Amino acid sequence: MTKVGRNVTKFKVGDIAGVGCVVGSCRSCDNCTQDLENYCPKMVWTYNKHHEDGSRTFGGYSDKTVVDEHFVVRIPKNLPLQGTAPMLCAGITVYSPMRYFGLMEPGKHLGVVGLGGLGHMAVKFAKVVGAKVTVISTSPNKKKEAVEQLGFDEFLISHDQEQLQAAMGTMDGIIDTVSAAHPLLHLVGLLKTNGKLILVGAPIQPPELPVFPLILGRKLVAGSAIGGMKETQEMIDFAAKHNITADVEVIPMDINTYIIQQNPQLTRN
Amino acid sequence: MTKVGRNVTKFKVGDIAGVGCVVGSCRSCDNCTQDLENYCPKMVWTYNKHHEDGSRTFGGYSDKTVVDEHFVVRIPKNLPLQGTAPMLCAGITVYSPMRYFGLMEPGKHLGVVGLGGLGHMAVKFAKVVGAKVTVISTSPNKKKEAVEQLGFDEFLISHDQEQLQAAMGTMDGIIDTVSAAHPLLHLVGLLKTNGKLILVGAPIQPPELPVFPLILGRKLVAGSAIGGMKETQEMIDFAAKHNITADVEVIPMDINTYIIQQNPQLTRN
Repeated sequence: MTKVGRNVTKFKVGDIAGVGCVVGSCRSCDNCTQDLENYCPKMVWTYNKHHEDGSRTFGGYSDKTVVDEHFVVRIPKNLPLQGTAPMLCAGITVYSPMRYFGLMEPGKHLGVVGLGGLGHMAVKFAKVVGAKVTVISTSPNKKKEAVEQLGFDEFLISHDQEQLQAAMGTMDGIIDTVSAAHPLLHLVGLLKTNGKLILVGAPIQPPELPVFPLILGRKLVAGSAIGGMKETQEMIDFAAKHNITADVEVIPMDINTYIIQQNPQLTRN
Repeated sequence: MTKVGRNVTKFKVGDIAGVGCVVGSCRSCDNCTQDLENYCPKMVWTYNKHHEDGSRTFGGYSDKTVVDEHFVVRIPKNLPLQGTAPMLCAGITVYSPMRYFGLMEPGKHLGVVGLGGLGHMAVKFAKVVGAKVTVISTSPNKKKEAVEQLGFDEFLISHDQEQLQAAMGTMDGIIDTVSAAHPLLHLVGLLKTNGKLILVGAPIQPPELPVFPLILGRKLVAGSAIGGMKETQEMIDFAAKHNITADVEVIPMDINTYIIQQNPQLTRN
């Protein structure tokens, strides 16, 4: 933080400040007064949207940004910045529903669909509180690396009928991070009675809802979007306490370099 | 109750006994030990299924039935039997999710889709605790009768876009009792943040799940099936306390008479 306004009370120059996906909201609606700025109808995204005065939000590609302190998170000194920044989106997106739906508790059995930016954060949060974690994936080649790096308990290949059958009715909840189209039926089947399937990835085509299986086990399917400011601070403090960060690959902020890194067969003009 | 076995402790001859949809379960699984016999994998339906010994269950068309006292409900003397019997299915089917999902509370705004056997019970339960009730229906001709008889607060015609728009984001929960195919999108839209759409009617064709609208308000869609024995007794006691019964039309238990009543142009052979 390089400068603070005269009415700022939460921060001083030199503090490490984090800005997530949200930089504004109405501060007075039912959602805002319940610390759910993320569901405020007037919520302002950090990137590619407009402030109330019409100015554009440029997000993480700015060198500098001016943000109301309400939408700034205090970053504890022990957290390395590179692995902390993504948690302000990927971390809170899974942390919030795992807390709200009671899935981040010792002894609970959590399924995590998709082991990407969001999924690997869900695994880390769940493991540290003593939950059992099963990763559900279509990619068998992710297994070895993921077991060694993330230490989760089980790895379920979602098109392996035998594995699926063995796991039916065993999970308290599932965090589904996949936004590609995929059926929900087998995921609902993996849940215990009262089980909760939480969608944080949004397929463009609405999937079919398996109503009978929901009814026969009082199960639910829910959605969740990032989190409020209070909970985002709580998540960062929790991560700091348990030394949790996102796994990142750091690349230079130069589009040509990036393209060449991703496509080594190309050469720079 | 005309006879009791020697180990029966809950009942004596002459007590009024009610038998609902369930007459058996394993009594030892996770569901049974949490008073959720209705979700036991070995649950025995009262009608057209088989007891563990292979004998058939005949349900409400028997003159007599022998049932384990665990699956028998005590009917308080002030409840008229004709309006009480249907509550052991229609009543508990809506009472249970309304309790579990926190929708049967003063000040909550509940939507009820479909004003039939289940829907009218949901209205009665919600009204007596001081919830606001909006009936959502495709049948404008049900309005007058329903307002006068059931005293609910609002009546929303689900294909009236203007009415729908005005009610968007106003409901804490919706009990959807309709088993005919129907879209869920506008129902999810009627919910507030954290709103709950509970399906107790099961369409044969799975409906499309509107994932984006769920995510943007942390909303959920759930299913629920009848209720456990403890909760069924609780529901009946609640009904007795508040003088709630199902609205019924009593007809003779004679199939020819019934057919003639329903089709007056026919005459008995």
